[in-house]
Amino acid sequence: MALPKIETCLSPLLLPLYSIEESIVVIIDVFRATSTIAAALHQGANKIIPVAQVDECIRLGIEIPNAITAGERDGKVAPGLQHGNSPLEYPRSFVENKTIVLTTTNGTRLLHMCSNAHEIITGSFLNLEAVCNYLVAQKKPVLLACASWKDRYNLEDSLFAGAVYDSIGEHFDMNCDATRSSTHLYRQAKNDLYGFIQDSSHFLRLSKFGLQYDMEYCCQVNKHNVLVKLQGAELVVG
Amino acid sequence: MALPKIETCLSPLLLPLYSIEESIVVIIDVFRATSTIAAALHQGANKIIPVAQVDECIRLGIEIPNAITAGERDGKVAPGLQHGNSPLEYPRSFVENKTIVLTTTNGTRLLHMCSNAHEIITGSFLNLEAVCNYLVAQKKPVLLACASWKDRYNLEDSLFAGAVYDSIGEHFDMNCDATRSSTHLYRQAKNDLYGFIQDSSHFLRLSKFGLQYDMEYCCQVNKHNVLVKLQGAELVVG
Repeated sequence: MALPKIETCLSPLLLPLYSIEESIVVIIDVFRATSTIAAALHQGANKIIPVAQVDECIRLGIEIPNAITAGERDGKVAPGLQHGNSPLEYPRSFVENKTIVLTTTNGTRLLHMCSNAHEIITGSFLNLEAVCNYLVAQKKPVLLACASWKDRYNLEDSLFAGAVYDSIGEHFDMNCDATRSSTHLYRQAKNDLYGFIQDSSHFLRLSKFGLQYDMEYCCQVNKHNVLVKLQGAELVVG
Repeated sequence: MALPKIETCLSPLLLPLYSIEESIVVIIDVFRATSTIAAALHQGANKIIPVAQVDECIRLGIEIPNAITAGERDGKVAPGLQHGNSPLEYPRSFVENKTIVLTTTNGTRLLHMCSNAHEIITGSFLNLEAVCNYLVAQKKPVLLACASWKDRYNLEDSLFAGAVYDSIGEHFDMNCDATRSSTHLYRQAKNDLYGFIQDSSHFLRLSKFGLQYDMEYCCQVNKHNVLVKLQGAELVVG
């Protein structure tokens, strides 16, 4: 039987090059949306509602009982929201049974751009193994979709795409240089992900806000090993 | 004095993210347009006229005395043209004092997309050093622009961008993950460029047409070490 295809999209601007109607799209926004999502759901949040705009986030936060509004613009807590986009902000004592309404600069935007996909899941190093196990079991084409930073290629999302292919490549048919490149990078970086990523645009940007601990946290592999699926308009444990 | 900026654009679709009005843009299409251009000019061709369409290529080939029409579509000689896009087709005995009218799938298209740049040069491993020396001397911002394959990231153009940064990075201000990633890759590949590139989409595609020798040729460093500049509508030795 022919193996399903796996490809990597390095920027939302390149999304039109891929046909995703039959594919599982893995939304990747390592710093920090998809890491925060994995952490919050693993710590007991009921669901996460990703929204594109801050005002929609505020409106839903008022409408929905037991909701937390959260999100960032340009790396900082967006004005009008209660919380930021840090996986460290969502311990079990705080998020258990809550609904998080989340808006971020890159990750939630890409998620909405992929609404015609067969299925959407989210990926981060925190839940790498759950993502890999799920993709192998489904036997469907896969697009690893990097959120990047304002449409520019970034290193950390590419590294995660490489980590997925490094782990489960043998189960897929691959002829995609973006996947090859990401895998080469990951193999170079994997023994010290956090060290490798310190020379990257996003690390330098977020470090200025004192967010090094966030990024170190996001580089931990399988710490919040849940599968996260989009069901309707909500991200839930799959 | 502040150093000029250097950045890498991994696909023509990402070009709108970069402001190039003040920049020297290096058009990179290693397999094979910019390699063929360096080879033909180094072997004595007077000039190369890059055109977007096959019919324009044919028309100019008739109008211009001593012209050769050349080009490819999807890796093969385009119907109606005399020659293909192989650096091996243009020895001195054939091209000396000739004008080549050239159209290719990716490289000539990107070149036309960058017409608002301060200046355009072309780069390939065959003329790496000439490109590097020129960029260092100009002290201007640089965009390393990968032609890619039909807007998809490719490994060989990214490797060349990495080779440039690896060689002259210290003369520039860099905070661009595409440049970092390309440089990591190049450092992994540089001791055996041709071996490394054999696991790439373009190599697999062109191999089917028996073009391995072309690609091996394109992986030679500094074999045709001329600086190639766009002057008006013509590529000439700069």
